[in-house]
Amino acid sequence: AFQYSELAQYVDSHQEEYVEALRDWVAIESDSSNILKRPDLHRMMDVTAEKLKRMGGSVEMVDIGEQELPEGQTVALPKVVTAQFGNDTQKHTVCVYGHVDVQPAKLEDGWRTEPYNLTEIDANLYGRGASDNKAPVLAWIHAVEAYQALNMELPVNVKFLIEGMEETGSNGLDAMILAQRDTFFSDVDFIIISDCGWLSKRPALTYGTRGNCYFFAEIEGPRQDLHSGVYGGTVIEPMTDLIGILDTLISPSGKILIPGIREAVAPLTDEEWRTYQDIEFDFDLYKNKIGVSHLMYTNKVDLLAHRWRHPTVTIHGIEGAFSDPGTKTVIPAKVIGKFSIRQVPDMDPAQVKKQVTDYLHSVFAKRKSPNKLKVTMVIGAKPWLADTKHQLYDAGKAAVKRVFDVDPDLIREGGTIPIAQTFQDVTGKSIIMLPIGGFDDGMHSQNEKMSRYNYIEGTKLFIAYLHEVSQLKKSV
Amino acid sequence: AFQYSELAQYVDSHQEEYVEALRDWVAIESDSSNILKRPDLHRMMDVTAEKLKRMGGSVEMVDIGEQELPEGQTVALPKVVTAQFGNDTQKHTVCVYGHVDVQPAKLEDGWRTEPYNLTEIDANLYGRGASDNKAPVLAWIHAVEAYQALNMELPVNVKFLIEGMEETGSNGLDAMILAQRDTFFSDVDFIIISDCGWLSKRPALTYGTRGNCYFFAEIEGPRQDLHSGVYGGTVIEPMTDLIGILDTLISPSGKILIPGIREAVAPLTDEEWRTYQDIEFDFDLYKNKIGVSHLMYTNKVDLLAHRWRHPTVTIHGIEGAFSDPGTKTVIPAKVIGKFSIRQVPDMDPAQVKKQVTDYLHSVFAKRKSPNKLKVTMVIGAKPWLADTKHQLYDAGKAAVKRVFDVDPDLIREGGTIPIAQTFQDVTGKSIIMLPIGGFDDGMHSQNEKMSRYNYIEGTKLFIAYLHEVSQLKKSV
Ligand SMILES: [Zn+2]
Ligand SMILES: [Zn+2]
Ligand SMILES: [Zn+2]
Ligand SMILES: [Zn+2]
Repeated sequence: AFQYSELAQYVDSHQEEYVEALRDWVAIESDSSNILKRPDLHRMMDVTAEKLKRMGGSVEMVDIGEQELPEGQTVALPKVVTAQFGNDTQKHTVCVYGHVDVQPAKLEDGWRTEPYNLTEIDANLYGRGASDNKAPVLAWIHAVEAYQALNMELPVNVKFLIEGMEETGSNGLDAMILAQRDTFFSDVDFIIISDCGWLSKRPALTYGTRGNCYFFAEIEGPRQDLHSGVYGGTVIEPMTDLIGILDTLISPSGKILIPGIREAVAPLTDEEWRTYQDIEFDFDLYKNKIGVSHLMYTNKVDLLAHRWRHPTVTIHGIEGAFSDPGTKTVIPAKVIGKFSIRQVPDMDPAQVKKQVTDYLHSVFAKRKSPNKLKVTMVIGAKPWLADTKHQLYDAGKAAVKRVFDVDPDLIREGGTIPIAQTFQDVTGKSIIMLPIGGFDDGMHSQNEKMSRYNYIEGTKLFIAYLHEVSQLKKSV
Repeated sequence: AFQYSELAQYVDSHQEEYVEALRDWVAIESDSSNILKRPDLHRMMDVTAEKLKRMGGSVEMVDIGEQELPEGQTVALPKVVTAQFGNDTQKHTVCVYGHVDVQPAKLEDGWRTEPYNLTEIDANLYGRGASDNKAPVLAWIHAVEAYQALNMELPVNVKFLIEGMEETGSNGLDAMILAQRDTFFSDVDFIIISDCGWLSKRPALTYGTRGNCYFFAEIEGPRQDLHSGVYGGTVIEPMTDLIGILDTLISPSGKILIPGIREAVAPLTDEEWRTYQDIEFDFDLYKNKIGVSHLMYTNKVDLLAHRWRHPTVTIHGIEGAFSDPGTKTVIPAKVIGKFSIRQVPDMDPAQVKKQVTDYLHSVFAKRKSPNKLKVTMVIGAKPWLADTKHQLYDAGKAAVKRVFDVDPDLIREGGTIPIAQTFQDVTGKSIIMLPIGGFDDGMHSQNEKMSRYNYIEGTKLFIAYLHEVSQLKKSV
C-alpha cells in the first residue's frame, strides 16, 4: 500500500534542508544568455549531476557541442544531465524534464533583494530561478530522495533530463533528443514537465501551450542614416513605411488583421467553454498583479481563451532606429520591426509565414514606396496540446486531490515550451505538464519567488504523482 | 583700392600651412556629446583662443557655467571664445560665429580613414569636423591673418564668437548672448555664420533655415515589461497604441495629417518659384549621394520647397521597446515615440505644440485604450529667414562674383541653426549665412570632408566679403 502520510511527514520534517538546497542553487548565477556567466552555468550542471550521483542514480553528462557567437567565435554549450533511478521493466518509466539555467537579473532592475541570494519574506523565497525552474527540479529530486530515505521502492522508474540552455532556446537539445531516441528515450513511457505555474491559488494541470512565430520586417532606404533637417521632406523614410505596415497587423480591439490567421484557429468547443467557466480566475488580482486598469476582455471565458487558445500579435520593438534617451535628429536608413504571433491549433507556422509575408508585401505595395521590404520568420514554434482524457491527466487529478484535497484547474499556458512539441514528435510519448509554480511567481520578472508552501506541497505532489502513474495500466 | 589679387596670391602660397592648421585642429577629438572627451574639448577652446591671441586680437574666454548630467552630476561647459580685431568706430563691425566642437566619429562606423587624422585623397581633406565647422572657422581666421601679413588695414572691425557646444544644442550660449547684448554685441552691425554648405558645385548664400519641434509621445501601460506568451492577448499593449498614433502623423506621400500645420505655412510666392527654378540642382547626383532610387518629388521646385520651406515629419525611433539584435518576447510596458516637425514661416512652435498634442490625444481617444498618453515638446526651435534684398546679400553676391566669377545660388537650409534666431531676437542685428562647405561634405556622417578647393577659395571669399561689407552704407 502507498504510505503517503509517512512520505509527506518526511518532506515536512526536511523542509529546511530543501530550502538550503534551493539557496545553494540560486546562488549560482547560471544565466545562459550571458556568455560571461558560462563558467557558472557549467558549474550548475556539475552540481546537478553530483547531486543525482550521490543519490545513486546512473548519471551522464551529455556533450551537446558548441554555441556560435555572433562574432564568429564558439563556446562550449553546458552539458545536458541525464540520470536514471530504477530499471525494472515491470514498471512504467517516466522522464522528468527540467532546466537549471535562469533569466538575467540585476539588483538595479528593480529587485527588492539580491537576486542571487535566496531571501525569505513572509514565507516566500525570493531569488532568480527560484520558480523557473530550480525549485521544481529540486522538488522532483527530493521526491525520489524521500522514497529512498524511507527505504520505499520507487513505484516507477524515474529518468531525469536536465538542461542548461532553456532560457535562450534550448540550443542543442533537439539534436540530443533525436540522437538518443532509441537509447535513453526508448523505454520512457511518459514525459513530465514542471516548468510553468498555476492560474490562481488552486493547483492546476497544464494541457496546452501556444507556439510562436517571430518575424523581422526590414525596410531599407538610403545608403546611410541621414540628417532629418537636411534631407527631411525629400526622401521617403523607411521608418514611416515601417510604422505604416506594423499598424496594419492588429486593430485597437485586438483583432488580428492578417487574412487567414483567425480562420485557421480551431473553434471553441462547448466543452472547452464549460472548462473555462469552471476555472477559478480573479480579474482584480490579475489586473493588480500587472498594474493595469482594464484588460482586453471583461468576460472570463473570452479572456482565458485569448490568453491560451487564440493567436495574438505583439510588436516587440524596432532595431536600427533611435532608441536611446534624449533627442537625435536622424532619419534611420534601415529599420527592422520585430513582432511575433502566438500559435494555437490548427495554425501551421509554414502557412503563417506565407500569410504574413504576402500580407505585409501587399500593404507595403499600396504605399508605392521605393524602399525595400524584406520579411523573415526567425522562429516558428508549433503549439502543443495534450488530450486531457489521457490517463496521465487522471493520475494528475488523483495526485492533486490527495495532496491538496481539491480538483485541479485544467489550464493552458500562453507562453511557448517548444521542447514539448519536440518530445512528442521525436519520441511519440505522451506528455503532461504538472506545474507547482504560483500564479504570481514573476518568472522572467524582477522579484521572482517560489512560496515555501508551493515548494514543499509541490514535492509531496510529485511523490503522489509517481504513485498514481504506477497505477496506470502498462502500455496504453 | 582693394588689393584682392595680392591677398588671393598670399592665400594660394600659404595653403599648405592652412591644411596643416586644419590637421592640428581635426586631431583634437572635441566631441561635445561625449563627456569623456570633455578635456579635449577644453583644449580645443584653449587652442582657438591662443591662435587669436597670437594674432593680436583682444581675446576673452567666457565662462558659461556648468552642464547638468542625467545622473545629477555637473561638468564644466567649454568656455566661449570671443575676440576682437580693430575698433574703428568709422567702420562697420561684423561678428563671425562658428563652433569648434564636432559630432562623434569612430573608424568602426564606416570611415575609410581615421576620423581624427586629416587625410587627403584626391584633393579632399577627410576628417571629423573638417567641414563642420573647423575649416570654415580657420578660413575666417586666415582671412584676417592675410590682411595682417600684407600690412593691409582690415576694412571692417572683426569680432569672433566661437563656441564648443553647438553639436549638442549650444548649451549656455543663449544666456551668454543675452548677458553681453549691451557689451560685446553693442557695436556689432552684422552677424556672419558659415556653418552650412552649398547646394551644388555653385557657391551659395543661405537666407533661411528651418526650425524644429521635437516631440516625445509616451504611452504607459502595465507596471513592468511582460512576457508576450503569458500575457499577450489579455493586455492592451502600449506598443500597439504607439504604432497606431504615430501612423496618423503623415501619409505615404509625405502629407502631414495634423490639422493646422500645413495651413500655417506661408504660400510659395511667384518670386520664390522663379528663384527655385533658377537654382542649379542635379537630381541624379542627389539620389546617388544618399543612395535612393526615387525621391518624394520629381519636380525641382517641389523638391527644393519641401527641403527648405515646407514642414516635414520624421519619426526618429522608439525608446523603451526592444531595439537590440536578436529576438525577445517582451511586451514593453512604457514606450516613447520620438518624432520632430521641421518649422518654417509662418509656423509658431507654441501653436504647433498645441496642434500636435490635441491631435494625438484625439486619435488616441478613438482607440479607447486604458493606457496613458503623454505628449511633450522637448525642443521648439523657430525657423530663421533673412531678407535677401538686404545689402548684406548684395555684398555676398559681389564677393562670390569676384572670387568665383559666377552668381551665387540663393538657398535655404533644411536643418536648424537655432542660434541664428537667438542672434536676431536678442541683438536685433541682421544675419547672413555665407557657406563654404561643399554639397557632398557629409557633415554628421561618416567620411566627412572639406575639399582643398572650397577651403582655399573659401578663405578668399571671406577676404573679399570683408571688403564688400566695408562698402555698405553705415547704419542702415
Ligand atoms: Zn522555465
Ligand atoms: Zn523561463
Ligand atoms: Zn555646425
Ligand atoms: Zn554640426
